[in-house]
Amino acid sequence: MKKIKTALISVSDKKNLNLLLKNLSKHKIQIISSGGTFKEIKKLGYKCLEVSKYTGSQEILGGRVKTLHPKIHAGILSVRKNKSHIKDLKKNNFEEIDLVIVNFYPFEKTLENTNKHSKIIENIDVGGPTMVRAAAKNYSDVAVITNPEQYEELMEELNSNKSRTTLEFRQKMSEIAFTETAYYDGLISNYFNSQSKNLFPKKKIFFGNLIEKLRYGENKKLNINQLHGKQLSYNNYNDIFSALLISKSLPKNTGTVIVKHANPCGVSINKNKFNSYKLALACDPVSAFGSIVSCNFKINKKLALELDMNALKILKNKKNLRIIDASKLNNSNLNNISSLFNSFLIQTPDVFSFSKSNFKVVSKNKPNAQTLKNLIFAFNVCRFVKSNAIVILNKNSTIGIGAGQPSRLDSCEIAINKMKRFYKEKLDDQIIAASDAFFPFVDGIEKLVQAGVSAIIQPSGSISTILVFSKTRHFRH
Amino acid sequence: MKKIKTALISVSDKKNLNLLLKNLSKHKIQIISSGGTFKEIKKLGYKCLEVSKYTGSQEILGGRVKTLHPKIHAGILSVRKNKSHIKDLKKNNFEEIDLVIVNFYPFEKTLENTNKHSKIIENIDVGGPTMVRAAAKNYSDVAVITNPEQYEELMEELNSNKSRTTLEFRQKMSEIAFTETAYYDGLISNYFNSQSKNLFPKKKIFFGNLIEKLRYGENKKLNINQLHGKQLSYNNYNDIFSALLISKSLPKNTGTVIVKHANPCGVSINKNKFNSYKLALACDPVSAFGSIVSCNFKINKKLALELDMNALKILKNKKNLRIIDASKLNNSNLNNISSLFNSFLIQTPDVFSFSKSNFKVVSKNKPNAQTLKNLIFAFNVCRFVKSNAIVILNKNSTIGIGAGQPSRLDSCEIAINKMKRFYKEKLDDQIIAASDAFFPFVDGIEKLVQAGVSAIIQPSGSISTILVFSKTRHFRH
Repeated sequence: MKKIKTALISVSDKKNLNLLLKNLSKHKIQIISSGGTFKEIKKLGYKCLEVSKYTGSQEILGGRVKTLHPKIHAGILSVRKNKSHIKDLKKNNFEEIDLVIVNFYPFEKTLENTNKHSKIIENIDVGGPTMVRAAAKNYSDVAVITNPEQYEELMEELNSNKSRTTLEFRQKMSEIAFTETAYYDGLISNYFNSQSKNLFPKKKIFFGNLIEKLRYGENKKLNINQLHGKQLSYNNYNDIFSALLISKSLPKNTGTVIVKHANPCGVSINKNKFNSYKLALACDPVSAFGSIVSCNFKINKKLALELDMNALKILKNKKNLRIIDASKLNNSNLNNISSLFNSFLIQTPDVFSFSKSNFKVVSKNKPNAQTLKNLIFAFNVCRFVKSNAIVILNKNSTIGIGAGQPSRLDSCEIAINKMKRFYKEKLDDQIIAASDAFFPFVDGIEKLVQAGVSAIIQPSGSISTILVFSKTRHFRH
Repeated sequence: MKKIKTALISVSDKKNLNLLLKNLSKHKIQIISSGGTFKEIKKLGYKCLEVSKYTGSQEILGGRVKTLHPKIHAGILSVRKNKSHIKDLKKNNFEEIDLVIVNFYPFEKTLENTNKHSKIIENIDVGGPTMVRAAAKNYSDVAVITNPEQYEELMEELNSNKSRTTLEFRQKMSEIAFTETAYYDGLISNYFNSQSKNLFPKKKIFFGNLIEKLRYGENKKLNINQLHGKQLSYNNYNDIFSALLISKSLPKNTGTVIVKHANPCGVSINKNKFNSYKLALACDPVSAFGSIVSCNFKINKKLALELDMNALKILKNKKNLRIIDASKLNNSNLNNISSLFNSFLIQTPDVFSFSKSNFKVVSKNKPNAQTLKNLIFAFNVCRFVKSNAIVILNKNSTIGIGAGQPSRLDSCEIAINKMKRFYKEKLDDQIIAASDAFFPFVDGIEKLVQAGVSAIIQPSGSISTILVFSKTRHFRH
């Protein structure tokens, strides 16, 4: 590559611009710019040629058309070793542009700050992405910088290579550039999708910012904040989010959920926070080993001591306790997305809120209001348990959960065994059960009834005892 | 909106172009075009103004710079009701362009057809996406068409609205346009990521084509092909892909997997295909109700009859049998992606292939070569079972699988119960077990040994019997 002679700069984010200009000037690089960037460069005291002077074409439409000019784009796109390209440039009196430093109108930030459609649309950058894409395509001859964080690397590159850049550097910057333009248009595409309420468009764009490679790091962007403890693994995150999904479905300031391997092993709602935790734990204290405890309330001192003691007792070492603050997490706009063999399955989430009207009592024996309320709570917990799912409830706490079994009967047996093993209190209160899908045979229901269950809620079927049908089926895999 | 007077056409895919031109001519719309599209339009016998004549600027750099001109982009980007924009156009002798019909250089098809980097890069379109993005931004005045499939809708629109389009139509087309540009740059970004082997870039783009909304439809693009039966649901797909993931890990032409709720409930390898199926089924015939059977071999007549009979027996109705051909499915480049509260967790897949060297025999009692081979097979199956996972094996077939339990002891009990319930043959062969993680206490191992297990493979620990340690841990949530 030849020495860089000319750079085009057009930056919406003017961070570190002074430092950049100082270095470009050191390398005697001519600068072309327009609009706000041009003004800023002049203000900082550097020489700069205005794009309109460079092209001989005035900036028009209030800045909408500035750089969309053949002189700019031929300068960027010409293949330096191509003789016909060289001839074309010469004939038109065009010059090569070797370095393009551009970042875009802040579309993402605009989305965060306003709902005003016209303002959002005005922040769609057209000229910027065009220059970036042209430079990124022609990376064998041109370097493209799309982020102020890259200035330092650029300077090192210029210093180490006598005002040149290496092909490796240019290819890396080109990779980032195309990711930026895809990300930018992904934001716009998703904004339009949300405006038109198009949940399943013919083409769907997902994108993400790398938060961490699951070593130590800041979790703030996930809107959960690790306050204490060792680094989190993939499975930790998986369990944490499973726990939070359940936690957020429970009445505020009452709910405790204990999750192990993405399945709840204890759920309780109780206005007494201490009891809420104790009753959730009582469902399966053995499985609680190494589990996630999620409370949808502020943990008081009494409970903190209890948790700590238990953590000490079970984990043997306080160091192994991790504490996460998820109070800022928002669970709107959630979709279930799973990826399989290079395909995505996308499903709108199961966050439907149940009320009495969603159910039909089909048994002769009718539940009273409290029983029906408890049944609905059990059915709500059931939706978060992996299929086949059976949840046994006493008052407002699970006392037996059977999860992830290929046969519903197995899930019944597991739930009943848990109940018998851990439930210490007298079973004189009404025990009820929920099933995430209908019982194909009566055997499971018989088992539950034999174990003391007096009311069952399930999506369909036909049996004795109190039986409530929901109009909805769960089925969490 | 005013009547459409001028359209700019630049199409790489020339499908339905004749039909389009016929209609535009009917509405007396002036056409501007360049390059191959211009030639094709002339050949088809329609009037057309060449872009270079329109702009007064020659096409240069072998076509790299044609439409990147202020006259084109001011024509597209001007806000029709903005007086200063109107003045700018007039002063420069520019005209409004009301309709932009553009599709891009076929980057995706080029990727499919060649590995040649320079050819791939040359197929990155710069001019096309710029015109499309400009028109899509200015959708309040301009209509943008990015796909020949949209021509018919455009024609209806022009016919119904006296050579005009509605705002609703233009916004819809703009939404699609930004999705196309995001998708296009997503392809490029991912191509660069794969070239530089960048698995976890700072920004990551995913994108997908809608295959179906899980009603009837073609599944060919998923590379699985439904040959028979009712429509597939989200959970069906989930189970099918879980089954295929296991199936593909087994020695070719020998393996049968039966999956229920994303967990295997029977796995067998046997050179006799019929026995392979029968032995997999024997592991848990009750759970096989409504399951997915995946064979990594061509199903012969004898087995087909057996499957059919069983399907009839279990499902009671042949109509409910679905048959999928997955022979063309490729499982390379798989990542585990799960989405949680607007975040993605991405993990490289657990497709590591085990050999003897990955294990260490830690017990005094050493396994012979066959036992070690069987242990490795059991450990391989274990990786596909949701945690906590216990797999009990006899010869080359699972005879007990315990899955998805919060406590490892529970999984042991489930696996043992399955074995006792369904395993009819004499248990004189060596019975072995695999665990996906180490046993925290000896109770689980004791249970297995009492049940007749003589060799155990697990990631770490220290006990009697034959015990083999793997250097790898599974943990499927």
